[in-house]
Amino acid sequence: MIKVGVAGYGVIGQRLADGVALQEDMELVGIADLMPTLSIRALREKGMPYDLYLVDGADKNAFAAADIPVAGTFADLIGKVDVMLDSSPGGVGAKNKELYEKAGVKAVFQGGEKNSVADVFFHGYANYEKGLGANYLKLTSCNTTGLIRSVDCLDRAFGIDRVAITIIRRVADPGDYHRGLTNALQIDKAPSHQAVDLMTIMPHVEATGILVHTPVTHGHIITVVAHGKKGRITSEQALAAFKQHDRIRVVRIDEGFQGNASFFRYARDLGNPRGDMYEIGLWEDSIVESGDNIMFAINIPQESVTIPESIDAVRACMKMQPDSKTGTAATNKYLKLGGWRSIKGY
Amino acid sequence: MIKVGVAGYGVIGQRLADGVALQEDMELVGIADLMPTLSIRALREKGMPYDLYLVDGADKNAFAAADIPVAGTFADLIGKVDVMLDSSPGGVGAKNKELYEKAGVKAVFQGGEKNSVADVFFHGYANYEKGLGANYLKLTSCNTTGLIRSVDCLDRAFGIDRVAITIIRRVADPGDYHRGLTNALQIDKAPSHQAVDLMTIMPHVEATGILVHTPVTHGHIITVVAHGKKGRITSEQALAAFKQHDRIRVVRIDEGFQGNASFFRYARDLGNPRGDMYEIGLWEDSIVESGDNIMFAINIPQESVTIPESIDAVRACMKMQPDSKTGTAATNKYLKLGGWRSIKGY
Amino acid sequence: MIKVGVAGYGVIGQRLADGVALQEDMELVGIADLMPTLSIRALREKGMPYDLYLVDGADKNAFAAADIPVAGTFADLIGKVDVMLDSSPGGVGAKNKELYEKAGVKAVFQGGEKNSVADVFFHGYANYEKGLGANYLKLTSCNTTGLIRSVDCLDRAFGIDRVAITIIRRVADPGDYHRGLTNALQIDKAPSHQAVDLMTIMPHVEATGILVHTPVTHGHIITVVAHGKKGRITSEQALAAFKQHDRIRVVRIDEGFQGNASFFRYARDLGNPRGDMYEIGLWEDSIVESGDNIMFAINIPQESVTIPESIDAVRACMKMQPDSKTGTAATNKYLKLGGWRSIKGY
Amino acid sequence: MIKVGVAGYGVIGQRLADGVALQEDMELVGIADLMPTLSIRALREKGMPYDLYLVDGADKNAFAAADIPVAGTFADLIGKVDVMLDSSPGGVGAKNKELYEKAGVKAVFQGGEKNSVADVFFHGYANYEKGLGANYLKLTSCNTTGLIRSVDCLDRAFGIDRVAITIIRRVADPGDYHRGLTNALQIDKAPSHQAVDLMTIMPHVEATGILVHTPVTHGHIITVVAHGKKGRITSEQALAAFKQHDRIRVVRIDEGFQGNASFFRYARDLGNPRGDMYEIGLWEDSIVESGDNIMFAINIPQESVTIPESIDAVRACMKMQPDSKTGTAATNKYLKLGGWRSIKGY
Repeated sequence: MIKVGVAGYGVIGQRLADGVALQEDMELVGIADLMPTLSIRALREKGMPYDLYLVDGADKNAFAAADIPVAGTFADLIGKVDVMLDSSPGGVGAKNKELYEKAGVKAVFQGGEKNSVADVFFHGYANYEKGLGANYLKLTSCNTTGLIRSVDCLDRAFGIDRVAITIIRRVADPGDYHRGLTNALQIDKAPSHQAVDLMTIMPHVEATGILVHTPVTHGHIITVVAHGKKGRITSEQALAAFKQHDRIRVVRIDEGFQGNASFFRYARDLGNPRGDMYEIGLWEDSIVESGDNIMFAINIPQESVTIPESIDAVRACMKMQPDSKTGTAATNKYLKLGGWRSIKGY
Repeated sequence: MIKVGVAGYGVIGQRLADGVALQEDMELVGIADLMPTLSIRALREKGMPYDLYLVDGADKNAFAAADIPVAGTFADLIGKVDVMLDSSPGGVGAKNKELYEKAGVKAVFQGGEKNSVADVFFHGYANYEKGLGANYLKLTSCNTTGLIRSVDCLDRAFGIDRVAITIIRRVADPGDYHRGLTNALQIDKAPSHQAVDLMTIMPHVEATGILVHTPVTHGHIITVVAHGKKGRITSEQALAAFKQHDRIRVVRIDEGFQGNASFFRYARDLGNPRGDMYEIGLWEDSIVESGDNIMFAINIPQESVTIPESIDAVRACMKMQPDSKTGTAATNKYLKLGGWRSIKGY
Repeated sequence: MIKVGVAGYGVIGQRLADGVALQEDMELVGIADLMPTLSIRALREKGMPYDLYLVDGADKNAFAAADIPVAGTFADLIGKVDVMLDSSPGGVGAKNKELYEKAGVKAVFQGGEKNSVADVFFHGYANYEKGLGANYLKLTSCNTTGLIRSVDCLDRAFGIDRVAITIIRRVADPGDYHRGLTNALQIDKAPSHQAVDLMTIMPHVEATGILVHTPVTHGHIITVVAHGKKGRITSEQALAAFKQHDRIRVVRIDEGFQGNASFFRYARDLGNPRGDMYEIGLWEDSIVESGDNIMFAINIPQESVTIPESIDAVRACMKMQPDSKTGTAATNKYLKLGGWRSIKGY
Repeated sequence: MIKVGVAGYGVIGQRLADGVALQEDMELVGIADLMPTLSIRALREKGMPYDLYLVDGADKNAFAAADIPVAGTFADLIGKVDVMLDSSPGGVGAKNKELYEKAGVKAVFQGGEKNSVADVFFHGYANYEKGLGANYLKLTSCNTTGLIRSVDCLDRAFGIDRVAITIIRRVADPGDYHRGLTNALQIDKAPSHQAVDLMTIMPHVEATGILVHTPVTHGHIITVVAHGKKGRITSEQALAAFKQHDRIRVVRIDEGFQGNASFFRYARDLGNPRGDMYEIGLWEDSIVESGDNIMFAINIPQESVTIPESIDAVRACMKMQPDSKTGTAATNKYLKLGGWRSIKGY
């Protein structure tokens, strides 16, 4: 059993903890945080299913006042694990790395850290093998993670040499008040970092893109214009490839998937914890051809999309499985991904 | 075991079904709907935990195409139950009532129906006894249900004779595309129907109010100015009364409950199905006094707030418990309401 | 002096009237509408700068009650003009056409009508000559009008044979309550009609695209991936071409143009009536190259962008100028378009 | 002619400058700012109708690069005026005050400064006389300014001794990206500062209130529950009083004033610069009675509502008019306020 800890029990950290807890070949030792946030208070109200460790600087009295039991210090947690999943606020992970190094513990960082924090910039499908045995890995960001799933899927099936993306980005998560946008679309300087990151992970692809922030909370939508290296890819071919993927859910507008909020609605109705979805959505009705380009739109559930690839990263760095195929398959099995494919007519 | 069916498996219907399924003295026989909506598709993907019956006019082929098994007709369902919870679209419930009458089945309608559909306009706390043995009950709407909880709570403790409310209404539910508002606050003609409805349920209170629609999805906020019949009610007195209530959760801004979205965030983190919350939220920091008036703000989780009172209605019409106190207590027990009070310091 | 009337004094109609009134070689005879809307009430409060005619079915008493003087009937207006600019609600224009035909009056319809209402589907730059002397013209929609400006600009300079667009659509206008979207991105079936319409107007270009609705009111943003027929177009070349265009305003994020709302802010600060802008915005910082593709983003001020091309249509159908160059130049002169180019450093 | 300067040409500063420029007994000497913002660039594109002075720390090269002429330094401007209207960012005004004191120049600060910056916390209607001859005045904030107009109006007519307010606050201005809220209602600790400020200006009234932030940009809505000192005030009485006020526009939902965005729409259609409105809106349909309380809703156009009272402040501190009645009347005349009352049927 690989022993795993989670640093930072925020939007991502909670989901990392839940995801690890579902892996039958991993043990979640505990989670670490600084303050009795709403998420920590919810953990308390649920009866502390995970042990809580306090990072340096935490105010013990605040936890006591909120009737929240504490299992130990951050150092205690690090001393008990093989690998840390670090989802601390951006920049804190780099500081934590010093503790991990001292303790001889591996770590997987999230997209908020600089690339330099890690030996490998990692994606479970596109470059799992690079992560094998590595000590420090950094996950791609939520948009890049989902984007690469779809581009890698087409690339393996047909060969892709160029993509142009438009990211229609959700600007905050549900429950955020510290950031937001009201009645405006905000544009970033091009090219977007997601296009640049895609080229780092998939160096044989030339990518560019534009990102526009929109005032919504339930998932980014990305349109992708991908160029077939060997010529035209038909909509039917692309669709068939996407439908085989365990982390891509193909949907149709007529089924009721009218936009990004439909995935959230559906996941809530499925009874998924927090209304989360690990898979990206891909609209069958959005796939169109233009010359040798294939164009399509995907939905990125920003809160949870990086969890599977983060668990893949644990598998890679701990050499639990030797390659992308077996590594992602193990993650998918425990997260029950792809089960929807058994529905007749999918 | 009281046998219950649910007509209309939409936003409310799903939650009624889930709520009934948790009552150990009730049996959920099945649910009925017209189309393979996202919610029905989710039911299918979950493996049909509830039997599905089709109402008249349903397209069987559409269900077959979506690989969704059907247990029978609406008439079949009605034939098997003691009481129907009807959460059909507004106006359809009135038509369904004819079927219920023919079959000699009781029914509880939601706020979208006209008052005339029912013998009793019902609230579990404020007038449970009126519903005892009645054949047709209509629930108060989501805002009115939550509002009455708070006003009835103060009224029982201190006596209330006048209230003025401002409803800051969420305009759509998560996942809605058929209604919405963009960058606007829309005002309704005063007085709002919620104030009028409150007077119907609590005829000894004079109420008025103004309603403003806002472009958000996660819960209405209502400010209440309540006048103490016997003079000043202090903030401390009001707070103590609210904290005793099983369907009112008292929170503080400093804990992280900064607005309506915090309740949704917290409920998701609690692991509540769909991120739902049955209780209303009440901000301790909002309670202020002005003369003999006490003013405070509550949060109404519009998707789920009427579920407990709807189950109370089943208890009343089936005479399962003789009065408000025992009826609501039974519902609360099975829905695990009020458990948060055991956290030290609440 | 060409005599012009405007049917429908809504969002577009008001702006058509104002635009025509600025043309020194045209006379605005009057406007026609059905109800004392806010816009008509504002006309009254301003002292009736334009004569108001009532269409059939209008309630005269409602106008009298609001103290609004009426100049005559719709037939009276039609009898006095050479050409009608019809911005009635979608479908009404087709009915009005019968009246125009009887009176021997030409008409220009807006994008809400079906293409079949007109002899020519028109754009001032891309196919002015097709409109010369035609009796019935239909303008491209707001998005298509702005999109074609940019694609036609590159096409004339460098040759374009393929485009893939992503339309990030504003879902309502400021002041709309009858339509809206709340916390959701909604996707349409692909290809979007704007791509199809572009091909109708510019048949030598292959176009496809995806449209996503967003909950904002201040302008659509479109990203365009355009393929150079003769090979790579550099960012510098594209920029130089865009800067020469009188209906394209090139901006930079660092100047403060952070998104669609910045154009509205800037137009308000300019003192433009209603905070309107006739030109599209184009972000210099968005222009990126990828292979033989050039990618960039434009901003479409949906309320006013079609006004110049609508006036061009009057020029074409009345043969006021013989070609696109002179026709658009006349419109631009009276609307004072392109004046920003005299600012040093633009 | 009283000579006036404006410090800070942002949202408020621009409007102060425009408002002063309309006063025939005042001269706008110029405006001062720090950076070539969009508003300054718009001033340039309009041909510099106002002279621009640079505050300390301004980067002259940036202005030169944008082709923007500069008339002098901040000290130059202060040296030429009798009174400064200071709408610098919060806190900067307090520093500027030292310069004003040295130069012997009076100043009027906006609501963002602390009360201690000024000798008098000022409202043109409620306490004009306190400002007579004062050196430093601070205006009430936008919400408080509009709120006091309505409460003072009732107070003068009927006597008011208690109010409870609910502020439904717009969270950003059109064109803001640095602040915003997405799909959330955020609540502040009660009582709101507006209620407290009202008591400072009108010490004979007891006030409390709750403020909720909403994700919109076009105007705050406040509901007011006001208690008649001498007993019941009828809706008709209140309506009649409001209709006499030059800075209150009474509207009806059926006219098309469905919400806050309608005022903005209407002001744009009126041709008001920037779509601004100096008057607050008051919905006739919102006025309801409950016991001795009268309840109603007002709309606060946050960008422009404080302009008239700021000009009143100049009149007071320069002793241009001796009392509230004549001071506000002079301001209203030049701003053409109340003209709508001449429309028959108002």
